[in-house]
Amino acid sequence: MDRTSFSSCNKGKPIRCKAAICRKAGEALVIEEIQVDPPQPYEVRIKIICTSLCHTDINYWKLNNDPRAKFPKILGHEAVGVVESIGEHVDGFKQGDIVLPVFYPNCEECKDCKSPKSNWCSRFCDDFLSNTRRYGTNSRFKDSSGEVIHHHIYVSSFSEYTVVDIAHLVKISPEIPVHKAALLSCCVSTGVGAAWKVAGVEEGSTVAIFGLGAVGLAVAEGARLFGAGKIIGVDLNPDKFEIGKRFGITDFVNTASCGEKTISQVITEMTGGGVDYSFECVGLASLMEEAFNSTRTGSGKTVILGMEKNASPISLSSRAIMRGRSIHGSLFGGLKPKLDIPILVDRYLKKELNLDGLITHELSFAEINKAFDLLVEGNCIRYTIWMDK
Amino acid sequence: MDRTSFSSCNKGKPIRCKAAICRKAGEALVIEEIQVDPPQPYEVRIKIICTSLCHTDINYWKLNNDPRAKFPKILGHEAVGVVESIGEHVDGFKQGDIVLPVFYPNCEECKDCKSPKSNWCSRFCDDFLSNTRRYGTNSRFKDSSGEVIHHHIYVSSFSEYTVVDIAHLVKISPEIPVHKAALLSCCVSTGVGAAWKVAGVEEGSTVAIFGLGAVGLAVAEGARLFGAGKIIGVDLNPDKFEIGKRFGITDFVNTASCGEKTISQVITEMTGGGVDYSFECVGLASLMEEAFNSTRTGSGKTVILGMEKNASPISLSSRAIMRGRSIHGSLFGGLKPKLDIPILVDRYLKKELNLDGLITHELSFAEINKAFDLLVEGNCIRYTIWMDK
Ligand SMILES: [Zn+2]
Ligand SMILES: [Zn+2]
Ligand SMILES: [Zn+2]
Ligand SMILES: [Zn+2]
Repeated sequence: MDRTSFSSCNKGKPIRCKAAICRKAGEALVIEEIQVDPPQPYEVRIKIICTSLCHTDINYWKLNNDPRAKFPKILGHEAVGVVESIGEHVDGFKQGDIVLPVFYPNCEECKDCKSPKSNWCSRFCDDFLSNTRRYGTNSRFKDSSGEVIHHHIYVSSFSEYTVVDIAHLVKISPEIPVHKAALLSCCVSTGVGAAWKVAGVEEGSTVAIFGLGAVGLAVAEGARLFGAGKIIGVDLNPDKFEIGKRFGITDFVNTASCGEKTISQVITEMTGGGVDYSFECVGLASLMEEAFNSTRTGSGKTVILGMEKNASPISLSSRAIMRGRSIHGSLFGGLKPKLDIPILVDRYLKKELNLDGLITHELSFAEINKAFDLLVEGNCIRYTIWMDK
Repeated sequence: MDRTSFSSCNKGKPIRCKAAICRKAGEALVIEEIQVDPPQPYEVRIKIICTSLCHTDINYWKLNNDPRAKFPKILGHEAVGVVESIGEHVDGFKQGDIVLPVFYPNCEECKDCKSPKSNWCSRFCDDFLSNTRRYGTNSRFKDSSGEVIHHHIYVSSFSEYTVVDIAHLVKISPEIPVHKAALLSCCVSTGVGAAWKVAGVEEGSTVAIFGLGAVGLAVAEGARLFGAGKIIGVDLNPDKFEIGKRFGITDFVNTASCGEKTISQVITEMTGGGVDYSFECVGLASLMEEAFNSTRTGSGKTVILGMEKNASPISLSSRAIMRGRSIHGSLFGGLKPKLDIPILVDRYLKKELNLDGLITHELSFAEINKAFDLLVEGNCIRYTIWMDK
């Protein structure tokens, strides 16, 4: 069966399909029939081909007393799809296009989107609370009783069909296998981008990566791609070293066996003065400080990718920073989705970027709750959830 | 009288001359006759034409229980001189050259000096304790009783003659007035460089500068030179606004009249979301944090120039940094002295860089202790101490 096929008689009409609904924080998702409205202006309705689950979904799934905790909702934001129909004023997308929905906006029209300085979209970046991008609290989803179902960070990929604003959609080459492309809609872009755009890793440089989950491994792959000579992986789990070798990790520091020394002391000794670039992919202020202290004087750069779990502040030595160091935060790896994801697809097709080995499990949509268990247990890197299986 | 003239019969021999000696921490300097040995290999003996006094001198003058507190010593590091004689293996300098001694090294041979990434000199940057650069604890100074007098951060400009390692010496065009050139050996280079090299201020950008001493005013001048549109000065002293206007400051925040609001809230409101670049030139962790919080989401950069007075750590919001912000420390404004100071001299000669108005007082060498009083009282920006007056 062709996974990109769909009935083309629904244009302008609601579609009835299956979605995994999260009705209450932390409770198992329930697969139900829902109604997906047609796209509004600047929106595209897409058929999801496959999706994955990311730690951000887990965080939002658990969120309770928080303005972002709107229930019932449809989670999921790492995915690939095919365009079913387009709303008014949509240029650049047509039925049948293979697309990545991306939680991070890129309107292409604001001052920041037009500037090469950063990947900020000042028009759309500041609001993660709305249901839909241009229509505020409106929703395109209803359940069978007519109750509104909320969207999730502008994607909601745990549904056979979803509606996405064009600021959150990237057209990609159909040559890349779809389940590998899906990795580029969140974790791989974040990690590879941090090495490429935020740090600017170059030939022969030294790198330390704190936390070897999917994002940390993607940082390693990015560092390898841009020519880093020594790539040190730091993790509590020694099995991650074997996995990491496939993505360019050359050395490993087990945080449990540093003894009297701090991790940064160990790394400073291993590298004769510290690494050129360090990356924190866990989300702990104490590790962010260790990452900072692991960089060399003169030009050491630290990149923060992990969202601090307790919103704790980072404490930096004012003397150490004076000696030419810097620390950078970024979202989505500093990449402009519409400009940079196609470049990564191209590098994959040229066999330069390695996306193999990140997908450790494949599941059917019916098994979606098992995906939550696997990710919480930490026994997988990424898996593909096929919508039609 | 020609200030660049000297007797040329002393080559290879000691010179007897006057120097202001600091015999004990915090005590008035005493002008005495000393002996200055001829230069060793890779060294140059220079006649100081004029010098200034910088807060770093004041800090070292007061230092007591510290490994760097070696007495008796000769302070002073902001100066201009003329080459009297050269040691062996000295290329690129000859008798009569106008030169700036610079405390910040630039060997031109190490990996970092050859890299465009930063201004670090990994060969020489890590040691501020020695007397002379290549000969460790040796000194070129003795007093009339034969006692060794220590050097001060490789310059010791409070002496009619001093000996400087070539890694600390920059040849400049004789066209620039010497007392203006002296400003480029420390404070102006640090400030202008921070705007130019560390932040990369560009056309139309917005800037906030915390602390309008000589370095802060030099940051403003650098920001103006590179096209900043709005330059906000932040200081406790409202008189600094009038002075600052001459260096491009367009707006002023008096830290004493922010009321209920934090400085960063005031700046965020003034700029509709924060500045592109903020600079801390005071050396207080709390102001470094305010500077960081004054930058815009997406691409705000903070540059730390002030050495934290109590070595307190900087505390940064992990959430705020994730939104595309960064914080950078630097020494000597990120400039490579031998490469970048001649560029600044050139921009002065083309009437692009403004060095007028920074020199508020002129004194004779005999009045050197008055210079300390003036700087401690805060009633001057910079002054010129003429050695022959
Ligand atoms: Zn994600
Ligand atoms: Zn935009
Ligand atoms: Zn200075
Ligand atoms: Zn060097």
